[in-house]
Amino acid sequence: MKKNKKVNAAILIIGNEILSGRTQDKNVAFITNWLNIKCGISVGEVRIIPDVEKVIVNNILILKKKFNYIFTTGGIGPTHDDITAKSISKAFKVKYEYHKEAFKILENYYGRSKFNDGRKKMAKMPRGSKLIYNPSSAAPGFVFNKVISLPGVPSILNSMIENCKKYLIKGSKVHSKTLNLFTVESNISKQLGFIQKKYKKSVDIGSYPFFRLGKIGVSIVSRSTSKIKLQYVNRDLIKLVKVKKIEILKI
Amino acid sequence: MKKNKKVNAAILIIGNEILSGRTQDKNVAFITNWLNIKCGISVGEVRIIPDVEKVIVNNILILKKKFNYIFTTGGIGPTHDDITAKSISKAFKVKYEYHKEAFKILENYYGRSKFNDGRKKMAKMPRGSKLIYNPSSAAPGFVFNKVISLPGVPSILNSMIENCKKYLIKGSKVHSKTLNLFTVESNISKQLGFIQKKYKKSVDIGSYPFFRLGKIGVSIVSRSTSKIKLQYVNRDLIKLVKVKKIEILKI
Repeated sequence: MKKNKKVNAAILIIGNEILSGRTQDKNVAFITNWLNIKCGISVGEVRIIPDVEKVIVNNILILKKKFNYIFTTGGIGPTHDDITAKSISKAFKVKYEYHKEAFKILENYYGRSKFNDGRKKMAKMPRGSKLIYNPSSAAPGFVFNKVISLPGVPSILNSMIENCKKYLIKGSKVHSKTLNLFTVESNISKQLGFIQKKYKKSVDIGSYPFFRLGKIGVSIVSRSTSKIKLQYVNRDLIKLVKVKKIEILKI
Repeated sequence: MKKNKKVNAAILIIGNEILSGRTQDKNVAFITNWLNIKCGISVGEVRIIPDVEKVIVNNILILKKKFNYIFTTGGIGPTHDDITAKSISKAFKVKYEYHKEAFKILENYYGRSKFNDGRKKMAKMPRGSKLIYNPSSAAPGFVFNKVISLPGVPSILNSMIENCKKYLIKGSKVHSKTLNLFTVESNISKQLGFIQKKYKKSVDIGSYPFFRLGKIGVSIVSRSTSKIKLQYVNRDLIKLVKVKKIEILKI
């Protein structure tokens, strides 16, 4: 994994089952966390779209202009609604064809007699793709241009994610610090705004209400590539907490 | 609620906490289910974007061309990172100002002495907005043009959703039928493709692997506004199941 300063990614969740509300997506949180913590890559946008070729192609073309990487999930299985690999080939105007190594992996996994057309389809990718090995169910994902295509089933995706690392440029790690306060947002919103303004170029401060132990609270989350700036923000926050006599929730 | 044939919506999740992986989104599944079942409105796209004014404005402008409604979640609280209402005002080029009724609701809820600037901010909306009442924490959401703005905290959003109904045109209900089979996708992918082709204009068929009772299976989900067409598809699927001698999982 190479190293670079600012690296970002988009996630494209492809699947009618998420858009219909049938399935609760779990891949966004998993991938964003992994990219943040392990690769220093921040996710700038997520889109959930249906299994429609034109829609997939358009989204790939738009997102590739804005981000270093596009992670896709879903649509690389054996059935008629699995059209991700074909659509990516179309977006980049390259041939959609059998990947020799993927074909061998799958033929070996299923045995020649059970290697039917549906299973063979899982070896078809944009010409020139590199494989992302799949330790749990053999069918590989692929990397083509700046697109990283993974399956939609979370357990399988999770087992494959480490195999994406070698294809990624590493960014500066984003550190975060959380302060959990027993107060309400509007009690501190003005001062929080001042602190955010003071560090607006280096630290991103968010405030998120919570309910815990029967009490209302707010999590103040500061995020930055600079540990020192995070400490400065924390110092200002602690001052604010003392002035307002707010109780801190220790975890 | 009025009635119409095809009505669609997009969801715009606004919040750095989702993009950083800190928070697992739960609003997409909730809203899409509610829209499908209660309103006959299908969700065509979901986007998760950061708390950045320019990004919010651009996404509103793009999505409003493509969908009947845009549901936004998040960014309508009292802190500096709550910029949804202001950004929507900018997108539609209308004034961002106090909504008289919202102001009264909040003033009444907090009491005049505790109604500080942060709390007052929650009464600011695009000029001409209609309110979505909030039975759990007072601060209302709003409807402006085709945008429906709701808070990001799931429990509060859930308590408000029924109050959106009167602003929506109802679409034809999409019915669905699920068949859970103890088989693998690639065993039926070819025939499933034929069935999908036969009903491609009226029924949308998806196939989703599962693991249950220690066995691998596939859920075949058919969705259509026509109950009769769904029955036809189901008849064809049952035929396929019999020919292939596949065990059905009864739930």
